[in-house]
Amino acid sequence: MSDAQRLIEDVRSRFGPKAAITDPSDVEPWLNDWRGRFHGNAAGILSPSSTEEAAEIVRLAGESRVALVPQGGNTGMVGGATPPADGSAVILSMRRMNRIRSISAENRLAVAEAGVILEELHHRANGVGMRFPLTLGSRGSCTIGGLTSTNAGGTQVLKFGTMRSLVAGVEAVLPDGSVHDGLSGLKKDNRGYSLDQLLIGAEGTLGVITAVALRLVPAVASRAVAWVGTESPMKALDLLRFLEGRTSSIEGFELVPDDCLQLVLKHIPGTRAPLESNQAWHLLIEATTSDPATDIAADIERMLGEALEHGIIGDAVLASNEGQADAFWRIRDSISEAERAEGPTLAHDISVPVAAMPRFIVDASAEVERAFPGVIASAFGHLGDGNVHFHVRAGTHAAPDWYASEGGRITHVVDDLVVAAGGSISAEHGIGQMKIDELERLGPPAKLHALRAIKHALDPLGIMNPGKLVR
Amino acid sequence: MSDAQRLIEDVRSRFGPKAAITDPSDVEPWLNDWRGRFHGNAAGILSPSSTEEAAEIVRLAGESRVALVPQGGNTGMVGGATPPADGSAVILSMRRMNRIRSISAENRLAVAEAGVILEELHHRANGVGMRFPLTLGSRGSCTIGGLTSTNAGGTQVLKFGTMRSLVAGVEAVLPDGSVHDGLSGLKKDNRGYSLDQLLIGAEGTLGVITAVALRLVPAVASRAVAWVGTESPMKALDLLRFLEGRTSSIEGFELVPDDCLQLVLKHIPGTRAPLESNQAWHLLIEATTSDPATDIAADIERMLGEALEHGIIGDAVLASNEGQADAFWRIRDSISEAERAEGPTLAHDISVPVAAMPRFIVDASAEVERAFPGVIASAFGHLGDGNVHFHVRAGTHAAPDWYASEGGRITHVVDDLVVAAGGSISAEHGIGQMKIDELERLGPPAKLHALRAIKHALDPLGIMNPGKLVR
Repeated sequence: MSDAQRLIEDVRSRFGPKAAITDPSDVEPWLNDWRGRFHGNAAGILSPSSTEEAAEIVRLAGESRVALVPQGGNTGMVGGATPPADGSAVILSMRRMNRIRSISAENRLAVAEAGVILEELHHRANGVGMRFPLTLGSRGSCTIGGLTSTNAGGTQVLKFGTMRSLVAGVEAVLPDGSVHDGLSGLKKDNRGYSLDQLLIGAEGTLGVITAVALRLVPAVASRAVAWVGTESPMKALDLLRFLEGRTSSIEGFELVPDDCLQLVLKHIPGTRAPLESNQAWHLLIEATTSDPATDIAADIERMLGEALEHGIIGDAVLASNEGQADAFWRIRDSISEAERAEGPTLAHDISVPVAAMPRFIVDASAEVERAFPGVIASAFGHLGDGNVHFHVRAGTHAAPDWYASEGGRITHVVDDLVVAAGGSISAEHGIGQMKIDELERLGPPAKLHALRAIKHALDPLGIMNPGKLVR
Repeated sequence: MSDAQRLIEDVRSRFGPKAAITDPSDVEPWLNDWRGRFHGNAAGILSPSSTEEAAEIVRLAGESRVALVPQGGNTGMVGGATPPADGSAVILSMRRMNRIRSISAENRLAVAEAGVILEELHHRANGVGMRFPLTLGSRGSCTIGGLTSTNAGGTQVLKFGTMRSLVAGVEAVLPDGSVHDGLSGLKKDNRGYSLDQLLIGAEGTLGVITAVALRLVPAVASRAVAWVGTESPMKALDLLRFLEGRTSSIEGFELVPDDCLQLVLKHIPGTRAPLESNQAWHLLIEATTSDPATDIAADIERMLGEALEHGIIGDAVLASNEGQADAFWRIRDSISEAERAEGPTLAHDISVPVAAMPRFIVDASAEVERAFPGVIASAFGHLGDGNVHFHVRAGTHAAPDWYASEGGRITHVVDDLVVAAGGSISAEHGIGQMKIDELERLGPPAKLHALRAIKHALDPLGIMNPGKLVR
């Protein structure tokens, strides 16, 4: 019996069969990432039902030197929750810890356990007349623990920030089995380094998050969703500045190049172009208000009318009802699926300073298409955050081994361009196992040294998610 | 010649006389904290003019094992910038690094070096039509580096948060002399643990901050300042909830007990009571708008009228001009001075969850006055942040050694009550040397262990601000 198997049996005898899953058919779905790019092995899944059980599991894992791989909804993009292939680690699933411990409109706070599904939190917040604003495509399966551990972003970052801005406190089991309780909900607390902030985005390498205190915001009274056409990413940024100078209601500002729209129209049934005119670039804009007295649609329509007069945009249409608004968002959310239907596509989740993004999109796309003739570079996404998904389609190069052969070289070129522009090779998806080599190749030495020092200081046995983020 | 003196001579020979100050009359003012409670010794002050010089100084200090005590405006409240009494350390003054490297209304960002005075940043932001919202009493002498290293708060935290919310990135020299450059201004960057967040509030124990990227917000178009009377802290919190449900414009919400007001009227020339009626508790409320079309005074007047009708408050007056608004604020800002004029006063900068604060104020005041007959407990300050300054006046106990004798026992009792209420013994002032014993006595063991592990991992030689925050 391996050390891992002994740990699993020990946990089963202490906390019952639900806490130690070994049936291969129950384990298998969690050994690979959802996109099927990373494949791991593990003798089982440990699944605590409480913080106390989680702490005891981490303590036992330390004693037996068995590594733990924390896992929430397993919706990550960088293999951060996939166990190593050698089977030496076990999965630490947080899905049984799925209670919302408290929720208060008065305090504008919810305390959710790590395994709470994001969509469940959305519903519960709505139920008390409030809103948890962060959202993203996997909202029906991603968990609060995973979102916090990866400092997730999504489509409403422009107004509300990433998880880092929305987390009021973290409860976590540290690698020595002790429990850090940061759930007090204090607005001000200057008792030394912020462990909460250190654990946000640590991808489970400094401990496992068991619960999170989250800020709630007033519910949306009404929203306006617009589809806008313009001639360039520069004009798109001009529009953002124009709107930001007039309103603080803009939540979503998503850039879509016309070739991405055309792929969606080609591959996704039931979609249609929002505008009748031809436009080189498109924007999906969402504005919201929590004030029932504000006519947000009229405000946005007026501002877009002015932008049209100023020549900032070429065309615009406001969704006339919720169905049309959802149809606009469906186009945006279907781009990745449409690209995959077209052929192999390399994804790069990158950021540069907002002001530099339009130029970067144009120049980097040209550079990649020049260096790798036949491929097609498209950048879409969160222009207002300086974060786009810089995708490169194989185009005429669609050989079966394209990802492994040319793909790696393309990623090198893209990442080099990002670093040269003062940007980040991981804007919102994290490092996981996918980007660890690139982080080591390109990361600032001072920062890499500090990351390693912190990791080894807090996890000297190396039992928390080894091989992810930092080695 | 001591190691410290050799380091100073080495720095002088490399970077000139301005970088190495040893004239006793120039050094002496910086050896003590401004309140005169902490006294240190140092052979001199090192004062780099650039990040490169700062990095070289830290590297040399590491080689010679001489500790450095980073210092900005020396306006701290907990002795965090006062060198140890044994003269083993030298002061690392950041005041020569006082350039604003860039400021942009378009990007809503300023990059300020550590030695920039807060008021200077206010002026420069105004100059580009923007605003840096954080402010506090020492704005004319405190520095951006110190504000960031202590995660300063102040009177506008309710709307804009502490420094932690306003810092977009940090440049710092780490204890090994390497430079962490987090100034890119990226809105999204998930390349591992946030060193920026770790350095905010680290009080110079993990390195010295050399420059900070700061978020700017739209300039204030108009403000409304009101003085309100009510019967209890509970009613005061009711008013805050009432207003927050109707507007997002509230920036300041300061609680003042009537006995504090009476002390100000007694000791501070030229002050007068804002209300004609007698009230047990007072609130200073400031609301602002960046929208020139909004009549913020009319909005607040209407809401306060409703609150009066609902019995939430007993009386209210709106400042009719800027002079009257300033006079209201002067009362609030003079409380500490008036208390000192009355006699010895112990200050406790504490926080508890916002919803628990009214009850805490009432119960803790009664408990302290019961345990130490003759003393007078008063809590005033940032009710909306769950942060009050819980002051205890000696009253009839005003013996010369009161601070050292009864004072320590009172602080123990107050801190125990704070911890029992789930609060923090340092809401915004930090730990420094003043609260390090209390943090060790009361801090959660898991957190204390993690703080020490991080400190020793990043500063194995112990050269950065030893004896502060964590031992």
